[in-house]
Amino acid sequence: MSLRVTFLGTGGAVPTTERAPSAILINREGDRLLFDCGEGTQRQMMRFGTGFGIDHIFVSHLHGDHVLGIPGLIQTLDFNGRDEPLTIHCPPNTHGDLHDLVHAVGHDPGFRVAIEPVKPGEVALYADGYRVEAFETVHRTRSQGYVLTEADRPGRFDRPKAEALGVPVGPKFGRLHAGEAVEAEDGTVVEPEQVVGPPRPGRTVVYTADTRPHDRTVAVARGADLLIHDATFADGLADRARETAHSTGREAGEIAARADVTRLALVHISSRYAGDPSSIRDDARAAFDGDCFIPEDGHRIEVPFPDAE
Amino acid sequence: MSLRVTFLGTGGAVPTTERAPSAILINREGDRLLFDCGEGTQRQMMRFGTGFGIDHIFVSHLHGDHVLGIPGLIQTLDFNGRDEPLTIHCPPNTHGDLHDLVHAVGHDPGFRVAIEPVKPGEVALYADGYRVEAFETVHRTRSQGYVLTEADRPGRFDRPKAEALGVPVGPKFGRLHAGEAVEAEDGTVVEPEQVVGPPRPGRTVVYTADTRPHDRTVAVARGADLLIHDATFADGLADRARETAHSTGREAGEIAARADVTRLALVHISSRYAGDPSSIRDDARAAFDGDCFIPEDGHRIEVPFPDAE
Repeated sequence: MSLRVTFLGTGGAVPTTERAPSAILINREGDRLLFDCGEGTQRQMMRFGTGFGIDHIFVSHLHGDHVLGIPGLIQTLDFNGRDEPLTIHCPPNTHGDLHDLVHAVGHDPGFRVAIEPVKPGEVALYADGYRVEAFETVHRTRSQGYVLTEADRPGRFDRPKAEALGVPVGPKFGRLHAGEAVEAEDGTVVEPEQVVGPPRPGRTVVYTADTRPHDRTVAVARGADLLIHDATFADGLADRARETAHSTGREAGEIAARADVTRLALVHISSRYAGDPSSIRDDARAAFDGDCFIPEDGHRIEVPFPDAE
Repeated sequence: MSLRVTFLGTGGAVPTTERAPSAILINREGDRLLFDCGEGTQRQMMRFGTGFGIDHIFVSHLHGDHVLGIPGLIQTLDFNGRDEPLTIHCPPNTHGDLHDLVHAVGHDPGFRVAIEPVKPGEVALYADGYRVEAFETVHRTRSQGYVLTEADRPGRFDRPKAEALGVPVGPKFGRLHAGEAVEAEDGTVVEPEQVVGPPRPGRTVVYTADTRPHDRTVAVARGADLLIHDATFADGLADRARETAHSTGREAGEIAARADVTRLALVHISSRYAGDPSSIRDDARAAFDGDCFIPEDGHRIEVPFPDAE
């Protein structure tokens, strides 16, 4: 069950030659979910080969560097003859502005574009095996993060024990694993609890978008497999981070440490650090001793299950 | 007197990894004029080092691939603390849509953005030594091209003849060249016509944007130093060019030949030709025997004076 994250745009408010504005594509076993869509996202998708079959866009907030790629992407989808609807999930009270953006300069998409406001704490998308929920963040404008949470998977199946209990090799193994009692060869009933371990958690990926460090993020990201956090500045510009309602690398690292996440990706890197953003990463690592990195545009990672061997 | 053209975006309606949507920057001796501004233009400007000090944007029409870079560019100019006003010249009746685009998702620029509709045949900009005029084209929506025309330069100054006529070497040479009669050493009057040749034409650059081949282009581009013409398709897709109101390479070449231009640049290349657009160029060359090329994104040329040696 693949869960692949492609960092399409890792830059801040002003892009650089190396970093496009915000956009992250999560491909979960073929479901393509786009989180934010800064200017140029469609070309980043081409460049990094993510495919264009996206069904959902999750918008954190309406600053230009997070949404100005939407009209161009929609026009290209249209040009390519798309029929399938597209849903744009967004913060409350942003529906009107997003509608205008989708229809910018008089374009009327040939497929349905649904704009669905979602409040922090509400689920934006229930899908087969996972859900995406909005959560509260703190920025200059109304902004929110999103957390993708997979459903629990069944516990491990103890095949040797099932055989020892006389369950015939075959479909009864699958029925037991799915939670159903079956009859062994000697007629005794074998309960699933006898051969199936406790449910194993799915994976969790959290995207904060632009935010100050916030307790809500710690709560939502508790034990997450991947936390993608605002890290616009290095610690030397902590004042500037406060003024602009962003986070420093250290602040992102502190949130990651408090939430005990497995992996921290630092994004929304200010153009100041175009030459060398390593100070942001070093500041984060001083606060967080898990896996911590600054993705380049096009960086792609596969998120493993927490119990992967 | 430099006149430099940088092709920032040479692609068609759908960009490719190689070609961004339409944008051309003309730098005339430090005056930066942007013609169309497709999505991603600001990053192309960074990538190709044109500088951000633009004062005028000339919009051909409101299809997304020609204008969706405007809000991001304005937000970046704003972020960089711009104070100077910016003028967007556009076709009649597009003011409202452009205003909405400039203010997309609630952005209110911190500098003045003037939106100035200009009709075909009218001058959009009078500047020191050149002007930019709109001209009629034929596309699916109201669209127009722009022609940049330099003022005539004074004729060549015949220095040996001035000396032979007894004009003392010094400031009187300059006054004669500027069109003023002066007194020679022997008291006779020397008229400028005696030592200054006929006025020499300045340079002309024509940008059609999206259009069918059109007599008006021939008239406007007569003898132009550079014609930048729609060449979306190769000749094999002439029907498609007609349906979509674009031109083929051959049609662009025919216009260039009829107008007797010096140089033809073929732009708005369809994504169909991403691998190899040479058939478009070959078709144009079959009709036009002047200098003819398909610029890549980032291609920059200096336009020489017609009488340059």
